[in-house]
Amino acid sequence: MTTITLQAIGVLHCALKERKGTPKNYDESVHEGTIEIYPRFIAGLEGIHKGDTIVVLFWLDRADRAVLRVHPRGDQSKPKRGVFSTRSPVRPNPIAVSELLVLDIKDNILSVRGLDILDNTPVIDIKNKIYSD
Amino acid sequence: MTTITLQAIGVLHCALKERKGTPKNYDESVHEGTIEIYPRFIAGLEGIHKGDTIVVLFWLDRADRAVLRVHPRGDQSKPKRGVFSTRSPVRPNPIAVSELLVLDIKDNILSVRGLDILDNTPVIDIKNKIYSD
Repeated sequence: MTTITLQAIGVLHCALKERKGTPKNYDESVHEGTIEIYPRFIAGLEGIHKGDTIVVLFWLDRADRAVLRVHPRGDQSKPKRGVFSTRSPVRPNPIAVSELLVLDIKDNILSVRGLDILDNTPVIDIKNKIYSD
Repeated sequence: MTTITLQAIGVLHCALKERKGTPKNYDESVHEGTIEIYPRFIAGLEGIHKGDTIVVLFWLDRADRAVLRVHPRGDQSKPKRGVFSTRSPVRPNPIAVSELLVLDIKDNILSVRGLDILDNTPVIDIKNKIYSD
């Protein structure tokens, strides 16, 4: 079976310290924070501007990787179903895909809005939201 | 620096064998193919139905991981810029995020439409497109 090795390109800094109270999705969040990109990756940021919406992939380092069935949105009244039919953070490869608004960018620090991710979570990729750009 | 290990949950089978002629994005593609999920992850598929749109994360195993600046969409007339401001497959952690239509699902085989990904590419995650579901 294929084994794949990733390297964090940066890390998130924000006020969200525990799952309780953290928005379940970025489109329900107005939380702000900063993404620190590690110096060796700075050249990759050229072309990102204030006001852009970016797609950020996070590695959810505190998520359970062994569970394959969950109650959707943690709602015990809903029957369990497969994690691949949900947006649960729990999954074999716990990668979150968030769309965030860039409030500011200065050197290797991106200020962003829309966080549904815990403080100190590794960042593994950033993409343009626009495909045709 | 954080090092992260992923395991493929499955693999893509399709007719796209080389980059030339492969659509640059899923929203420009009507190509069809099948995603084979490995048996140990089958329980995670429960709840995915024909007609659903799913978000599939692929590991682009043939992409260059060392390049940080590219011509957007390979267009040499456009100045190079940082990979994180593009959708280029070239990036430090080459993960593609595609939205695909489920044409059929039978046991561990998903038939899908909208492929912009080469044959035999590892699949690392599947999510519901709908956040509130």
